[in-house]
Amino acid sequence: MSEISVLSPASVANVVCGFDCLGFALSAPCDEMTVRIIEKKTVRIVNRDDFNLPTKPEKNVAGAALLSMLRATDENFGFEVEITKHIKPGSGIGSSAASAAGAVVAANELLDERFSKLELVKFAMDGEQVASGARHADNVAPCVFGGFTLVRSINPIDVIRLDFQPMFVTVVHPQIEVKTSEARKILPKQVSLTDAVRQWSNVGALVSGLQKGDYELISRSLEDFIVEPVRKNLIPKFDEIKNESLRAGALGGGISGSGPSVFMLSETSVTAQKVKNAMRGIYSKTAIDFNIYVTEINAEGVKILDS
Amino acid sequence: MSEISVLSPASVANVVCGFDCLGFALSAPCDEMTVRIIEKKTVRIVNRDDFNLPTKPEKNVAGAALLSMLRATDENFGFEVEITKHIKPGSGIGSSAASAAGAVVAANELLDERFSKLELVKFAMDGEQVASGARHADNVAPCVFGGFTLVRSINPIDVIRLDFQPMFVTVVHPQIEVKTSEARKILPKQVSLTDAVRQWSNVGALVSGLQKGDYELISRSLEDFIVEPVRKNLIPKFDEIKNESLRAGALGGGISGSGPSVFMLSETSVTAQKVKNAMRGIYSKTAIDFNIYVTEINAEGVKILDS
Repeated sequence: MSEISVLSPASVANVVCGFDCLGFALSAPCDEMTVRIIEKKTVRIVNRDDFNLPTKPEKNVAGAALLSMLRATDENFGFEVEITKHIKPGSGIGSSAASAAGAVVAANELLDERFSKLELVKFAMDGEQVASGARHADNVAPCVFGGFTLVRSINPIDVIRLDFQPMFVTVVHPQIEVKTSEARKILPKQVSLTDAVRQWSNVGALVSGLQKGDYELISRSLEDFIVEPVRKNLIPKFDEIKNESLRAGALGGGISGSGPSVFMLSETSVTAQKVKNAMRGIYSKTAIDFNIYVTEINAEGVKILDS
Repeated sequence: MSEISVLSPASVANVVCGFDCLGFALSAPCDEMTVRIIEKKTVRIVNRDDFNLPTKPEKNVAGAALLSMLRATDENFGFEVEITKHIKPGSGIGSSAASAAGAVVAANELLDERFSKLELVKFAMDGEQVASGARHADNVAPCVFGGFTLVRSINPIDVIRLDFQPMFVTVVHPQIEVKTSEARKILPKQVSLTDAVRQWSNVGALVSGLQKGDYELISRSLEDFIVEPVRKNLIPKFDEIKNESLRAGALGGGISGSGPSVFMLSETSVTAQKVKNAMRGIYSKTAIDFNIYVTEINAEGVKILDS
């Protein structure tokens, strides 16, 4: 086996009340990636798309993740990775995480699964650092583990794969730029104990609701008193999008990552389509370009394709 | 059926990271209570212990809860409640909650279970208000529902009974007074977003660990960066008690309610006994009176006795 191809999925981080800990993988869109072993102990990037991403491995998200992995081996070979991105960088649905996670999962398959999923998350976090300057795992964890994950701690890394029932996801991506640095700068440094208690009660309730498949509980728990109130101002029509989605039957939702994409969870695909129509109705009346799609929570994460 | 006797259990609230939301019932100690129907639409309190608790129903925790329940009916009868308390008031293991919850569960049985558990929690909260001035549900919820509960919201009331695996609990009660008002006053009004995120990541992880029966995860999640650091100073030898309990094999634990009792969770009864010995070793060297016991998480809550 000298090359492995994978589909590496988009993902949603900062799931409403679960800022900086809860995330899930999406069934679509996915990046296509092929990793092959090369003789030299280095990483070679071949971009097969029009995003003009860096080809220097240490500047490239997938490259940095693979370099981190190579450093953890005493092998003398390297990797070439061919990337066709379908997840637009900067959309808030984990484009960089898909590159980083897909690369290390594929490479690990070439190494006969030498590394654990948790180790892969750590390598992928070194990729994320290139993209955002922060070694966060909120998107790479669901890509590597699949499904719905909770990152309990970064240092030491502790990822929990949560039990969850199937759900449909409507994602709208208004084609505006939200700078991650700006989205970070407006976060409150301090929060009231009262709001913090409400938030952690909701996180606990959401984890329980996901596990029990109690959709009403999931819906009640999808509240964010801390981050959404400040970040929603970066996203045009956020309140309208949310209110009309709930009216259409969505369980709840919010900003994906640090935006600008907004996601809504629904129990059925029929509802998720209604949510899509409601969202389209709102952005159609504006000058904002956007795209909307309905997908599902992806239980598998990075998918290894048959060679 | 004209009278019902119940055993109403002690409980632990503010379970480490789950300040103001997580609680569980204990198998022991329990108060003994008998509720009987009387002709007049009023509540009569008969205390069968030496705690000198108020006998005016509106000043008595069980009385206030029963009055709240009576107001919700159009019946013309009332209740007499006979109480033998074994849970010492002020110990931090839900003495007042046991009185309030036991009374309304017994009375509801006399009314052929007219009210839902959630309604009983609300009546019992009116009893709690008499005791502490706050309508909180952290202790009455596990008494009424049994097991491990999460109070997601007070208004409207939302209680989730969490799935959990059996665990043993070692409780030490140093016989000192911790005023609830004092314990409240020292709470921080504001917390850093960083600490809040760590706390809600742990709450989510704990709920998941309880459900999966992943004792290592439960142990890792039993961290409190917000309340324990300020309240532990009210409890003599807290750090020593905690450190030696962990060394003896406890999964983790902390202050029960607002203290002074301290609880530790263990996977086995053998470990829970070792924890007891460790705790005894510490307080024995002081002038503080104390008692320690090993019990279990009580899945049933208030227990109705055969008449």
